[in-house]
Amino acid sequence: MPDEDAVVDANQAFYRAIESLDNATMEAVWDPDPSVTCVHPGWPLMAGRDKVLQSWYTIFDNTMVMQFTVTESSVIVSGDLAWVVCTESLRSVVAGRVNEATVEATNVFRNRNGQWRIVHHHGSPVM
Amino acid sequence: MPDEDAVVDANQAFYRAIESLDNATMEAVWDPDPSVTCVHPGWPLMAGRDKVLQSWYTIFDNTMVMQFTVTESSVIVSGDLAWVVCTESLRSVVAGRVNEATVEATNVFRNRNGQWRIVHHHGSPVM
Repeated sequence: MPDEDAVVDANQAFYRAIESLDNATMEAVWDPDPSVTCVHPGWPLMAGRDKVLQSWYTIFDNTMVMQFTVTESSVIVSGDLAWVVCTESLRSVVAGRVNEATVEATNVFRNRNGQWRIVHHHGSPVM
Repeated sequence: MPDEDAVVDANQAFYRAIESLDNATMEAVWDPDPSVTCVHPGWPLMAGRDKVLQSWYTIFDNTMVMQFTVTESSVIVSGDLAWVVCTESLRSVVAGRVNEATVEATNVFRNRNGQWRIVHHHGSPVM
């Protein structure tokens, strides 16, 4: 499989992991590097694997449903790193209330032993 | 100069180019690749060099002052690509009104003939 296709698969797997609302599934798609980073829409930077994962656990605890339709605009591979620019159409149910939003995202992936895992997620609200 | 230092210099040059409010200075720090991309805080994706630069011209036309203090959280180099996660403290004057904001940014750079230029900027508001 060409690298770009494998990166698109990893990008989609990242969103399926969010939709699972399952901590262990989410842990598996993130690179084990302790210095991974994440910016949720409107949030300050989360730096470090513990802080990043804890932020997802908190989101999962407070969310009943998350559904993404993701359109990749660009997928660039350079050696063991790759980055994806994509637009998320997000439908979520939080505290019983349905929310629909568009989010622009930049996702960076690292290849370890043939497996691409996310090292940086940056999502921003479209207002 | 180690690659990481050169990338930090390119990142700082990108913000100095914004502060210049000068179209030609901004054109020089962006990679010539027609497929460069940019997400301004709260905006949808700008895809393509023409759209990206036009968005900056519009910002420059409507802004009297922009001043950045930028703190890099991580700088990763892989071959000819590099990405920086940083926090911008931004002070701007738009239509005579002073604004202060914190912006989280992901910036991706490409090395051509020893010169790092930006290929993707993603800024998101911290609310």
